[in-house]
Amino acid sequence: MARIVVDVMPKPEILDPQGKAIAAALPRIGVEGMTLVRQGKRFELTVEGEVTEAHLAAARKAAEELLANTVIEEVVRVEALPEEA
Amino acid sequence: MARIVVDVMPKPEILDPQGKAIAAALPRIGVEGMTLVRQGKRFELTVEGEVTEAHLAAARKAAEELLANTVIEEVVRVEALPEEA
Repeated sequence: MARIVVDVMPKPEILDPQGKAIAAALPRIGVEGMTLVRQGKRFELTVEGEVTEAHLAAARKAAEELLANTVIEEVVRVEALPEEA
Repeated sequence: MARIVVDVMPKPEILDPQGKAIAAALPRIGVEGMTLVRQGKRFELTVEGEVTEAHLAAARKAAEELLANTVIEEVVRVEALPEEA
């Protein structure tokens, strides 16, 4: 079994109120110096056996058609996860 | 300006109904072969200038204290983002 990771982020021009809330909260726990925070999603897709090019193509299709709302989000990463984690 | 990425996933023993819903929906868009889907979060923290070790330490603190609910989630990645994206 191996995993493919798909990362989805709000497009830069889209407001991200969760990210803004986190950025506002960071100084309250003593974390300074972060000028912008954006929150997106990470998906881990598990496949049987090794990750093949066909699996990656399927993951890209899933990312564009199901995992991301491409009106407001963009897929920033689709790749096999090294199998240490 | 540079970015640090923090990835947070539900712990393996925690139910992930969103992931299950996605896994059930994939065959309906013609994507087969994914045996498990887990949904987590990806955060991008922007800092002024280069990412320093101090920035990474601050990001790790933010991850453990604010970004992840460590009762049910685990921080799986805190690292500087290569500046092509």
